[in-house]
Amino acid sequence: MTAPNRATLWGRVLADELAKGGLEAVCIAPGSRSTPLTVAFADHPDIDVYSHLDERSAAYFALGRARRTGEPTALVCTSGTAAANFHPAVMEADQARVPLLVLTADRPPELRDSGANQTVDQVKLYGDAVRWYTELPEPEADERKVRSLRTTAARALAETTGVPSGPVHCNCPFRKPLEPIDVPGDVPDSFADTLAAVGRDGPFVETTGGTQTLTDDEYQKLLQALEAADRPLLVAGPADPADLASLEPRAITDLADRLGAPLLADPLSGLRYGPHVKESDTPRTVYGGYDAYIDALPAPDVVLRLGASPTSKRLRHWLRDADARQFLIDPAGAWREATFTATDLLAAEPGTVVERVLEVLDEREPAESATPGSADDAWRARFDAAERRHLEICDEALAAATLESQPFEGAILATAIANAPDPATVFVSNSMPIRDADRFGRPQAADLTVLANRGASGIDGIASTALGAGSATDDPLVLVTGDLAFYHDSNGLLAVERCDVDATIVLLDNDGGGIFHKLPIEEFEPPFTDQFKTPHGLEFEALGDMYGLEFERVAPADFSAAYRDSLETPGTQVLAVDFDSEASHRRREALDERVTSAVENIVDGSN
Amino acid sequence: MTAPNRATLWGRVLADELAKGGLEAVCIAPGSRSTPLTVAFADHPDIDVYSHLDERSAAYFALGRARRTGEPTALVCTSGTAAANFHPAVMEADQARVPLLVLTADRPPELRDSGANQTVDQVKLYGDAVRWYTELPEPEADERKVRSLRTTAARALAETTGVPSGPVHCNCPFRKPLEPIDVPGDVPDSFADTLAAVGRDGPFVETTGGTQTLTDDEYQKLLQALEAADRPLLVAGPADPADLASLEPRAITDLADRLGAPLLADPLSGLRYGPHVKESDTPRTVYGGYDAYIDALPAPDVVLRLGASPTSKRLRHWLRDADARQFLIDPAGAWREATFTATDLLAAEPGTVVERVLEVLDEREPAESATPGSADDAWRARFDAAERRHLEICDEALAAATLESQPFEGAILATAIANAPDPATVFVSNSMPIRDADRFGRPQAADLTVLANRGASGIDGIASTALGAGSATDDPLVLVTGDLAFYHDSNGLLAVERCDVDATIVLLDNDGGGIFHKLPIEEFEPPFTDQFKTPHGLEFEALGDMYGLEFERVAPADFSAAYRDSLETPGTQVLAVDFDSEASHRRREALDERVTSAVENIVDGSN
Repeated sequence: MTAPNRATLWGRVLADELAKGGLEAVCIAPGSRSTPLTVAFADHPDIDVYSHLDERSAAYFALGRARRTGEPTALVCTSGTAAANFHPAVMEADQARVPLLVLTADRPPELRDSGANQTVDQVKLYGDAVRWYTELPEPEADERKVRSLRTTAARALAETTGVPSGPVHCNCPFRKPLEPIDVPGDVPDSFADTLAAVGRDGPFVETTGGTQTLTDDEYQKLLQALEAADRPLLVAGPADPADLASLEPRAITDLADRLGAPLLADPLSGLRYGPHVKESDTPRTVYGGYDAYIDALPAPDVVLRLGASPTSKRLRHWLRDADARQFLIDPAGAWREATFTATDLLAAEPGTVVERVLEVLDEREPAESATPGSADDAWRARFDAAERRHLEICDEALAAATLESQPFEGAILATAIANAPDPATVFVSNSMPIRDADRFGRPQAADLTVLANRGASGIDGIASTALGAGSATDDPLVLVTGDLAFYHDSNGLLAVERCDVDATIVLLDNDGGGIFHKLPIEEFEPPFTDQFKTPHGLEFEALGDMYGLEFERVAPADFSAAYRDSLETPGTQVLAVDFDSEASHRRREALDERVTSAVENIVDGSN
Repeated sequence: MTAPNRATLWGRVLADELAKGGLEAVCIAPGSRSTPLTVAFADHPDIDVYSHLDERSAAYFALGRARRTGEPTALVCTSGTAAANFHPAVMEADQARVPLLVLTADRPPELRDSGANQTVDQVKLYGDAVRWYTELPEPEADERKVRSLRTTAARALAETTGVPSGPVHCNCPFRKPLEPIDVPGDVPDSFADTLAAVGRDGPFVETTGGTQTLTDDEYQKLLQALEAADRPLLVAGPADPADLASLEPRAITDLADRLGAPLLADPLSGLRYGPHVKESDTPRTVYGGYDAYIDALPAPDVVLRLGASPTSKRLRHWLRDADARQFLIDPAGAWREATFTATDLLAAEPGTVVERVLEVLDEREPAESATPGSADDAWRARFDAAERRHLEICDEALAAATLESQPFEGAILATAIANAPDPATVFVSNSMPIRDADRFGRPQAADLTVLANRGASGIDGIASTALGAGSATDDPLVLVTGDLAFYHDSNGLLAVERCDVDATIVLLDNDGGGIFHKLPIEEFEPPFTDQFKTPHGLEFEALGDMYGLEFERVAPADFSAAYRDSLETPGTQVLAVDFDSEASHRRREALDERVTSAVENIVDGSN
């Protein structure tokens, strides 16, 4: 490898090393100080470059891509506030454990605190939200320095997929010339053939990450506790990309069946959708409607919890109030249970724990083994009955929404998920859509990858994250978003054309923050409407014109047909469905009461 | 003061104390965790609430308002990524020394690292970019705690306008209930009459900030150096709000005249515009065209520099290459001169230094005093001649732009500034517009407040900052922006209607990053167009529809008339003027050559 000057060399070695380490994509926002990085990435045959004009959107796009693939995506920006615009997505990547490699260009170190233009303190800019912060040395065609660059690049990339995965920040100072201009003597000819310049065939450093594993005794103890339970339960919360890669869904459903334990699968767990799901057999094994009925069921006595804290607040509170032994499994040994009732933390990879427990079951002499499903027989039957009744009532509500014009937002989520293509990526915005997806998105055998930004649960960056996820595979992309989130990242829609992503965007437009109707502040007027609900009256059609999207206002009753059409139509369509957020919320409440009373009857009857 | 519960009490005391300390405005983004703050501010009769839906835009709006008034503006958001969206504006506020009080709501401390929803590590979120970080204790109707709250609120507000002024971050944890719901016993009746609850008549703590002052000897020494100079020079860079408040423009022009020193006034110095400016007399005292001709002039031998580093790179390099004694005055004693050639740093308030030096001059016996203007007589004459020739050539170029259809972007800046109402606030975007304003915005006696985000020089948040500045006074508001900046903060346009700001927005639309034509990367294709110039083809008309703006595409030759019409028309108009960025840049270069050769002749002739 050679280069006309040291900055160009630096950029080329960095891109080369990252490509050798497996980096496939980078999101770049234009800027001058980052020129050596931009030029090198744009020139690299194995790295796809996505160009974005708003760094906040760029970062969320990269986040979405990395979340969908589980592979690190890199980010490049110039110095100054550009780097601060990455912060929200870095925060989400931290909480949601998404591998992001953030490369911020910087001015040379002597310019800090000098009043130089566009020069800020970028050192540790994201605080503790990154797995690793490192500042590259100043570019120079020095063998040790360039070997350190390769080592740092390889290590930084590997750290993004460490345990837990997450963002890594490399601050990269450059001085002029930034462009690939010939600077005689800057990179001696003799440097071209050095190991530092050429690198190795693969990564300069191959990182093999160890994982925390339990001993056989510890697996036995876990199994004993689960088998001794009368009412064992598996709870799968939102999964991070590493969880998804490590978990074999059939292994978990197998374990659930052998223990007689219902598996409550969060829509973001990677377990609510897929060929392992039995849509109607009894027992179902995988349950998705618990947010509607869980309060009516008896408490579990032993719980095994995977992933992050479940989306369903009702489930979380039900687990909090249970007098149960609760095992949390977390590969990083982090505590992710904010009611502080769990009793055991297993710092180990969930997939490994599940498989090893199954192996222990298999290895046993038949005589010793507890009878699978020996738990309280009524236990799973109650979940089956409750789930069935919940789904029947949902079906009635869906029919009423269509036939009797009783629109409610949950019906859109139910339809968008039930009628999504197989396979598909379905991205769901925070605030109400993810809650409605949790309650109304029923388990299916279709191969749906349902994603959300549930790490920090912001409504910023939603369009970009979805489009980034959509860019990563050939699966059709569906985004379901509310109007505030749609407004918040309207800039992200530029990626539809610029990054060539095809999507169906379902816009639930209730003109403001519908979620506040769920909260007691609803009773305080003022300031409820002006400061919380914040109706804006925005005519989102204009964004269609601006970003080359086909924009259609769809009556709730026509949504299903319009959705089907959109999925069959190339290009990106926005299907905007207007709702009254208060009416939607009242309908949710009414439906909730119906299910609660129906399920209480069932439970009473089955006792 | 009483309250139905401790969270409500906390919010009310905080708002009460901030109002007593003089806070007049707060920008609030909707959210649940921040409910106690939002409710208290919305209810306070003396604080104006601006509601924003995108926290990034909210923060820039607050920045603009604080920059225009010099008074702190507060910011409120909920927990999570919302707070990270404030980061770019906090960074700009740090660099540009703008008083911002950032109040981030947070979940209770026990929820950190617990996997709780929308809970991130907000401690010291903005790193060293704030003057002070503090975390409020958990709300409680305890006298010492509430007195601490009042003290902290008063101190935090005072810190924003300390030396130097800037952002302060208070992280504010709250637990439920967040709404003003009655919680019996939470706030005892007896608490209502305590000093803690009632506060004092004014602020709970009156902060009187000392300033660094020099001794009489030190003033004498400075004056001696200036008087001994053959070619003394005053350079005023971008001023922060405190500089503007402390500097009396006539005092500086008086000093310049008495020393025979030209005053080179950055467009952001607060000194290029105003009644102290002589538009045509010789000597002019205040010079604005130096970016065009400074290289042709002899170097100064003593320089007195105020404010931040000048916008003009050519001026900075000319000063760097001068063999001169250079005094920097900075009230915080910070070093803001990135070429590292200045020789003396005076840590003192610029206004005080100038006035005291004038007093020393006045106090002298006439016999002792050096003759005012004793410096090299040709020194100011050269500046006068160069400035005059530069302005003549600009006038010819402006006429050609109109009459002969040789449009160039600088003509728009020249016109927008020359024809701005008196008084007016003129906000100029970063990248090319501020550079064109620097070169083509001629000094005027009109009372123009010309502002830009020149601290960190980002192109994010431009519309919001301008609208925030516009919201602060009754002066007409003009914003001149490029297309990338306009896209970047398109969300900020929501404030036009939502915050009731009336503006004339001049959009220089050259479909991408015109500034890159100034850089050597222009020669490298690819990746020049795709990764640097980044043409986007956006039809900004749609934003007019979306945000209720009158949008008009204006031919360059018609700009002057359309601009006049817009200024006379209520409501917000966007005047979009299309340019070819490459042609604009070539025209700048050609003009530059003309001025350079014309001024070289003058200087030769006058020697």
